[in-house]
Amino acid sequence: MKEPVGVRPLVVIVGAGFGGLRVARGLSRSPVDVTILDRHNYHTFVPLLYQVATAGLEPEEIAQPIRRILRDVTNVRFRLNTVTGVNLDRRAITTDTGELRYDYLVLAAGSATNYFGQDLAQVTSALRDLDDAERLRDQVLGTFEAASAAEDPASCRQLMTLIVVGGGPTGVELAGALAELQRHVLPHDYPDLDLSCARILLLEATDRILPGMPPALQAKAQAKLSELGVEIRFGAPVADADANSVTLSSGEMIPAGAVMWVAGMRAPPLAEAVPTDKDSAGRLMVSKTLNLPGHPEVYAIGDMAHVGGPETRPHPMLAPVAIQQAALVAENILRSLAGKPQQRFVYKDRGTMVTIGRNAAVAHIFGLRLSGFIAWLIWLTVHLVWLIGFRNRMLVLVNWAWNYLTYDRGVRLIRRSSSRQHVSNGNEEAP
Amino acid sequence: MKEPVGVRPLVVIVGAGFGGLRVARGLSRSPVDVTILDRHNYHTFVPLLYQVATAGLEPEEIAQPIRRILRDVTNVRFRLNTVTGVNLDRRAITTDTGELRYDYLVLAAGSATNYFGQDLAQVTSALRDLDDAERLRDQVLGTFEAASAAEDPASCRQLMTLIVVGGGPTGVELAGALAELQRHVLPHDYPDLDLSCARILLLEATDRILPGMPPALQAKAQAKLSELGVEIRFGAPVADADANSVTLSSGEMIPAGAVMWVAGMRAPPLAEAVPTDKDSAGRLMVSKTLNLPGHPEVYAIGDMAHVGGPETRPHPMLAPVAIQQAALVAENILRSLAGKPQQRFVYKDRGTMVTIGRNAAVAHIFGLRLSGFIAWLIWLTVHLVWLIGFRNRMLVLVNWAWNYLTYDRGVRLIRRSSSRQHVSNGNEEAP
Repeated sequence: MKEPVGVRPLVVIVGAGFGGLRVARGLSRSPVDVTILDRHNYHTFVPLLYQVATAGLEPEEIAQPIRRILRDVTNVRFRLNTVTGVNLDRRAITTDTGELRYDYLVLAAGSATNYFGQDLAQVTSALRDLDDAERLRDQVLGTFEAASAAEDPASCRQLMTLIVVGGGPTGVELAGALAELQRHVLPHDYPDLDLSCARILLLEATDRILPGMPPALQAKAQAKLSELGVEIRFGAPVADADANSVTLSSGEMIPAGAVMWVAGMRAPPLAEAVPTDKDSAGRLMVSKTLNLPGHPEVYAIGDMAHVGGPETRPHPMLAPVAIQQAALVAENILRSLAGKPQQRFVYKDRGTMVTIGRNAAVAHIFGLRLSGFIAWLIWLTVHLVWLIGFRNRMLVLVNWAWNYLTYDRGVRLIRRSSSRQHVSNGNEEAP
Repeated sequence: MKEPVGVRPLVVIVGAGFGGLRVARGLSRSPVDVTILDRHNYHTFVPLLYQVATAGLEPEEIAQPIRRILRDVTNVRFRLNTVTGVNLDRRAITTDTGELRYDYLVLAAGSATNYFGQDLAQVTSALRDLDDAERLRDQVLGTFEAASAAEDPASCRQLMTLIVVGGGPTGVELAGALAELQRHVLPHDYPDLDLSCARILLLEATDRILPGMPPALQAKAQAKLSELGVEIRFGAPVADADANSVTLSSGEMIPAGAVMWVAGMRAPPLAEAVPTDKDSAGRLMVSKTLNLPGHPEVYAIGDMAHVGGPETRPHPMLAPVAIQQAALVAENILRSLAGKPQQRFVYKDRGTMVTIGRNAAVAHIFGLRLSGFIAWLIWLTVHLVWLIGFRNRMLVLVNWAWNYLTYDRGVRLIRRSSSRQHVSNGNEEAP
C-alpha cells in the first residue's frame, strides 16, 4: 500500500468512533491530509446498542456509513482496514492489507469487553458492537421460541431466565429493556407460554448499581428495576459461566437461557500491539497533552487511553470523554504544526444519564439529580439530537413512537441460525 | 414433541411464505387447529430482496415476525423448526426437534436457487432469502472498498465488474438497482475511485430478457437497462463460475468482483424428502385439486408444486400463484371436513411487473402494456399496499422517499466480515 508523497503532513486516525470522527472533523479545514481507518465501514452509535439487543431498534438505525459522514470533507480519506500493529520508530502502522506511514497518529480504537482474566468470551454474550447486539437479540428471542416448545416447567424456567452480569449503565439499561420485552411482547406473541417462569436476574459484584451516580439516583434506579420485575443480586461476583448457567463465588449455580456479560470494559487488542506503558485494563498511558511518552506525534484518546500517571484515576469510558479529547487532539496537532505549545486535557463532566424502560430514567446533569419521566424525556431528546444523520433520527423516531404507542417491538427477527443451535442445548426434547 | 390430542383436526402448514400464511388466514375462523412451521421466525417479502441486496432497504423492512402476523389468530400456532421429512403413511412430519402428526398437511416451503446441475452454490451469490440479500450487499460494497484501495487499473476493473447471471425479473431488477448504486452513490462516497472501470454485466443464455413479458416490453426494459449502463450479453450461457470470474460456454473468461446467480429456481431440499412424483425442477406433482396423488389429505402449493400432469406447463413461480392456490387449499380442507367435493385450481393471471431503477418499470397487467414512470408508480403502489404490516410500509416509504429525493442509499453497511475476506482475494496487495 503506497501512499502518495504529499507536501502536506499525513494524520492517520485509527478508529471511526465518536473520538476518531471528531478528530477528523476538527482537521477538516486544515492544511493536512487525513486517513481514517476502521474495521467496519460504518460508525456505530454505541449508547443505543442495548436497544438493538432488545429488538427495539434495527441495527441499521444506529449505524451510519463512514463514507457518507465524511462525504463533504475533501481532505479526509476512509480505509476499511483492521490495524494490527504500530511501529513507533518507523512511524508506520500495519494493517491487514499492508503498511501505512504517518506524520501524526491518533489511536482511537475504543474498548473491548473485560472478562477480568476469565475465559468467558466464547460462552457469554457481550455488547460492544453491532454484531454483538444482533447476536444477543437472536439469542434472547431464540430462548423464547425454545421455551414455547419446551414441555416441562424446569426447562421452561431455565430457558426463560436471562442473566445480566454487571450493574453498570449498560447492565441497568439492558435489564430494564429485557423486562419490558418480557412483559409487553411475550404475552401477545407467545400465548401458550407460562409467563410465571420468565425471570431477569441482574448480578452485581459490589453492593450498588450505577457506581458513578449519586446514591439517591442509584436507589431510584433500583426501585424502578424492581418494579419492572428485575431481580438484583448484590455482592454476587461470578466465578464461572457458560452459555446456559452462571456459577457465583459462593458456589451457587444458576441455570439460564442466556448469560450476558456487561461487567466491564478494557482496552482493545490493538493496545497490546503498541510498545508503550499500559494500565491494568490495558489502556495506553498518555500525558496530559494526550501523547504517548517520548512520541509527541502519537496521540491516544477515548476508551483506550489513560491520562496522567498511574496514580491518576482514568476518565470514565464514555463518549463525551472521547469527544472532548478528540477536539483537543485536533487542536494540538495544528498547534504542533504551527510550533505552538501543546494544551492539556481537562474533562468537563456534564453528567450522565441511564434509562430504565419506558418513561423512566435517572440523570445526573449540570449538578441536577433527575429521575422518572422528565429524566427519560431529556434522555430521549439528547440521544436523538446526538445521533448522527437526519435520516437515522427520523427512522429511530418512527420506531420509538411505534414502540411507545403500541408496547410492541418491531424488530423481533432471529437472523442468525447459529444462535438457535446455541439455545437448543436447553431443549431436552431433541430427538 | 408430543401434541395434545384435540377433538379438532390438526392442519400442519410447512412454510410461512405468501402461500403458507394465506392458508393459515383462510382457516382462522374454522373448527380446526393449525400449526405453521418455518425455519425463520419471520416472513420475508421476497419481491423486494433485490432492494436489500443493493442497499436501498434495510433487511428488517421487508421482514415481519410471524408471531406478530398471527397474533390475533387464536387457532394458529407457530413453531420455529426446520422440517426434514414427511412420512405420508404415518401422517407425520419430521423436524429438527422431533415429530409432528397431522390430519391435513400443506407443503408450502417455497423454492431454492437452480444451478442446473452445476456446483456453484459455494462460489456465487444467490438471492433467495434475507441472508443472501445481506451477504450480497456486503459483497458488493466490499468490492467498492477493495477497488478504492487497489493500485493498478486491471484489478480495479476486475473488482468493479459485477456480473448478474440470468435475465429474468430478479436479474433485471438487480442489474438496474446495481447500476443506480454505481451511478449515484459511488461518485460521492468514493471520490478517489476511477468510475470508468465500473461495469455491470447481465448474462442471459437465451436471446431475450424477461421471458414471460410481451416482446414490446422486453425491448423497453432492454433499452432502459442500456441507458443505465448495463451491458446485456445474449446467448451467453455460463459454463463455469467462481467467486471472481465467469466462464462462458464459448470459453471466454470474464474476471469480476462479484458473481450473482439469479438464473433460475427449483424446488427446496424438503421436496426431495417427500416420497411422491416430481418434475425436472424437483417440484411435487399435484392434482388439479392440489393434492399429492393417493393422499387427499396432503396439499402442495406455490413454488414447490407442479399442478396437473407432466404434459402441463408448471405455473410461474410467483407470489400470486401461491396465494391463489393457498386460498383454494383452505377452502378444500373445509370442504373435505364437510364431506363436499374438492375444487380445482384455475390460475387468474393478473399480470406481472418488473422495475428497472428510478422512475422506470414495465408492467403487463389486466391486458395492458405499460412502461416508464406510470408503470413504476403502479409498481410502487402495489408493493407498498401489499407489504404486510402498517409499520413496515411506513418505514419503507420513508426509506424510498429518502432515496428518491437524495439519490442516496441509506443502508450501505458491510455487516459480515466474512464477505471482506471473500473480496480481498481480488486485492493483490495483501502482505
